Amino acid sequence: MANPTPQPIEVYTSLPRERDAIGEITRRAGVFNAEEVTTVFELFDDYLRSPGSGYNFFSAKVDGRLAGFACWGLTPLTEGTYDLYWICTDPEQQNRGVGKALFQSVETAIRERNGRMMVIWTSSTAEYHPAVNFYERMGCSQAACLRDFYKPGDDLLIYQKDISKNR
Amino acid sequence: MANPTPQPIEVYTSLPRERDAIGEITRRAGVFNAEEVTTVFELFDDYLRSPGSGYNFFSAKVDGRLAGFACWGLTPLTEGTYDLYWICTDPEQQNRGVGKALFQSVETAIRERNGRMMVIWTSSTAEYHPAVNFYERMGCSQAACLRDFYKPGDDLLIYQKDISKNR
Repeated sequence: MANPTPQPIEVYTSLPRERDAIGEITRRAGVFNAEEVTTVFELFDDYLRSPGSGYNFFSAKVDGRLAGFACWGLTPLTEGTYDLYWICTDPEQQNRGVGKALFQSVETAIRERNGRMMVIWTSSTAEYHPAVNFYERMGCSQAACLRDFYKPGDDLLIYQKDISKNR
Repeated sequence: MANPTPQPIEVYTSLPRERDAIGEITRRAGVFNAEEVTTVFELFDDYLRSPGSGYNFFSAKVDGRLAGFACWGLTPLTEGTYDLYWICTDPEQQNRGVGKALFQSVETAIRERNGRMMVIWTSSTAEYHPAVNFYERMGCSQAACLRDFYKPGDDLLIYQKDISKNR
């Protein structure tokens, strides 16, 4: 069977009414615990309440349905460093380029703000290996590893992408 | 002339009325910019508003006067990792053990909460060298360096102390 025609992916600034759908995607991703899902809601509420909160959300839609989101923003107390806090694709919409479209939209937005660097915190555990592979495919490299940071046996990995290159 | 008798240092949970004095010490420390001073006020207000904010403040008093403060708390999304966000001594009260008393009180409080690790973010610039030397004297070691994180030429240094040892 031939691959289906790829659906176009639309990325845009998240809408207030997408709050529940974003929470639902985070839950269904399967890698985030209850505290982390709550954190996504808190950041989304900060984002809705105040544009200066430092948290921006992008949504990705495929075929009229929300397929993923990214949360990113200027890292406090830095000049030109941006955190990609969350990037999450609906498990039913994997391998269609949703994550890549979101990542590239965030990267473009950071460049437009004269950002120099993108930073991503992630975990060393097996369930995050696909995420780590994704960051590496997107041109990020590991800048630090803090052993047992999240809990014993669960290290913090910091990935970084130099955005100042190839302007 | 003999050294004056060292004054006892009293460390305690910061009081609401110390808000302005804590801001003043931050300002007079000379290493923090306006945005950073504002951040200290924001964290202190979070601390006053809600005990669950994740930010705790300790004050140190010498001879009846506020001589320094520390801000610390459980690092979100971790189990047993604590951030020492700020530690600051009045410039007029340097070299009297105020920083050490604050650091040790924070370390004790983390141990009491079964914390495993203390993490400190600092800068590689010259004005932070005394702080870095202080963290090393307190038993911390550098766990990571992210080049140009704060701004070009200003790296993020992450110091870490393993609290699970020597219980």
